[in-house]
Amino acid sequence: MSEALQGERSQVRPVVVAMPFDAWMRQHQSKAQALIARFVPQAHPLVPQLHEAMHYAAALGGKRVRPLLVWAAGECVQADAVALDRAACAVELVHAYSLVHDDLPCMDDDVLRRGQPTTHVRFGEALALLAGDALQALAYEVLTPDVGVAPALQARLCALLARASGADGMAGGQTLDILATGGAIGGDDLMHMHSRKTGALLKASVLMGAACGGVISRHDPYAPPSPSLQGAAPVYAALDTYGEAIGLAFQVVDDILDVTADSATLGKTAGKDAQQNKSTYVSALGLDAARQLAHDLRDKAQAALDTLPAAQCASSQRLRELADLIVLREH
Amino acid sequence: MSEALQGERSQVRPVVVAMPFDAWMRQHQSKAQALIARFVPQAHPLVPQLHEAMHYAAALGGKRVRPLLVWAAGECVQADAVALDRAACAVELVHAYSLVHDDLPCMDDDVLRRGQPTTHVRFGEALALLAGDALQALAYEVLTPDVGVAPALQARLCALLARASGADGMAGGQTLDILATGGAIGGDDLMHMHSRKTGALLKASVLMGAACGGVISRHDPYAPPSPSLQGAAPVYAALDTYGEAIGLAFQVVDDILDVTADSATLGKTAGKDAQQNKSTYVSALGLDAARQLAHDLRDKAQAALDTLPAAQCASSQRLRELADLIVLREH
Repeated sequence: MSEALQGERSQVRPVVVAMPFDAWMRQHQSKAQALIARFVPQAHPLVPQLHEAMHYAAALGGKRVRPLLVWAAGECVQADAVALDRAACAVELVHAYSLVHDDLPCMDDDVLRRGQPTTHVRFGEALALLAGDALQALAYEVLTPDVGVAPALQARLCALLARASGADGMAGGQTLDILATGGAIGGDDLMHMHSRKTGALLKASVLMGAACGGVISRHDPYAPPSPSLQGAAPVYAALDTYGEAIGLAFQVVDDILDVTADSATLGKTAGKDAQQNKSTYVSALGLDAARQLAHDLRDKAQAALDTLPAAQCASSQRLRELADLIVLREH
Repeated sequence: MSEALQGERSQVRPVVVAMPFDAWMRQHQSKAQALIARFVPQAHPLVPQLHEAMHYAAALGGKRVRPLLVWAAGECVQADAVALDRAACAVELVHAYSLVHDDLPCMDDDVLRRGQPTTHVRFGEALALLAGDALQALAYEVLTPDVGVAPALQARLCALLARASGADGMAGGQTLDILATGGAIGGDDLMHMHSRKTGALLKASVLMGAACGGVISRHDPYAPPSPSLQGAAPVYAALDTYGEAIGLAFQVVDDILDVTADSATLGKTAGKDAQQNKSTYVSALGLDAARQLAHDLRDKAQAALDTLPAAQCASSQRLRELADLIVLREH
């Protein structure tokens, strides 16, 4: 994060954060790994091949940006820890399933993911397809435990995840992406496609974390009372804007890195967008303007956090740092 | 249904059913069609191709056995009508997605389904894959409306559907099926595979209908009180047994029809099991023993309904008739 930004913020709210961001991030990445080991065990007596493929797809790593966003939003609203862990795991399972299916030969046909063979290269297409399907179902299993999470919150988390990952979200965006490959689509259409393909799930991560703290759209008739918050509506609005902005920023940076980074750094095949003649923010805007857009979106996300009520604003440090991470990352 | 069976039942409970089963079935099949038209509209301005493929996959018809089971179980426990319709639709969406993915070239590679080109033949593999993924997500959207269904029931329905369709249910069974193709697996393994591949979702249909009437496992800490029922546990136990038996019976009959019916009657390619050297109930037991097993399972399912408390037993006529339909169907 830039010193200028830090200076601005410290004037508004002198926050004491005990743990450096890197340590917090590593701690929570380990937590994500532990949750995946718990909910997607590698070994299973009944259908070992399927579970092995599911585990491979989910455990392979990555930055765990979506779970980190769930936890960071949760910190901001003093969320229920059990629900938060399950939400973090569920959103990562949906992300993992989408990667498995995106990599299939009939889609992006990619053989490398996070520096490893993609799931279908390792296990075959049929098992990869089924592992993706089962990971999607598992996400909803994880969100609906018999005990430990209030049923109304379970329902709300399922609703957020389903809407973000279906035809109006991730799957719809992926379809637009496939259809746009080979053709050139312009700025507005591009933003529209990416706000669904990548943005919807990132935004849902933030809103699921918020829901675990009782922060739900004021239009939701089932919104539980939130005694710890002085009115949840402005908190929801701020986190909604934050989620929207970082969701889009993430994709802009992905497009930039596809041009500027090499495969080894990315852990996946670099330069594929240009090779497939895909419309990206770089092809539509040029590299410099794309970089500027990413920074503007980061600023917009962080400005939204400034509108939070004092208590939540003081607890939004991790969300600020994640906005920096998303824009400044090198892979 | 056999006259002997009708005679036995009429002695126990003289039920007056105004509408013949065929009329009830057609009425509810039309209702399923209307729900699909509502939740999976053919035309959609943003990603028309995806919605068209989703609609094609979901609307193509079939007997709608799963929604019929949801409604029949719901009639048995005086279930909430709004929740019941959504449960019926959701389970059919999951069924539809599974057919789209099962038909893909990397799976069963089938070109004909219900007498029509399969979804990937019509729309291409990428769109078929994404339509299946989006249909799965849509099922959970349908189960989690903002209003109209109590949140705790939403959560319970999501839990039942997710567990029935994931690695411990349908996707796991499908994996066993794929792995068993070309090899021969025996009776117990076969039953194990089919209880997941087909049975889990059929059983879940019954239990989702029951849940809409407040009938939930007595072990469920979130089970809402069920004032209309004199203790939900025996009702749950009876419907659980019924669902298990008809779930298995359905697959046994499928295996029989693959041998005895022609493609035109089935609406899909007949004889594929033998052609692919698949282990089926017919290959494992022979045709006569498979037929006997199907009838025994029907009897077991109907005997379970006899154990229902009087009020529910009197309302279980549609479930009895569906057990007959499942076993006596010709396609």
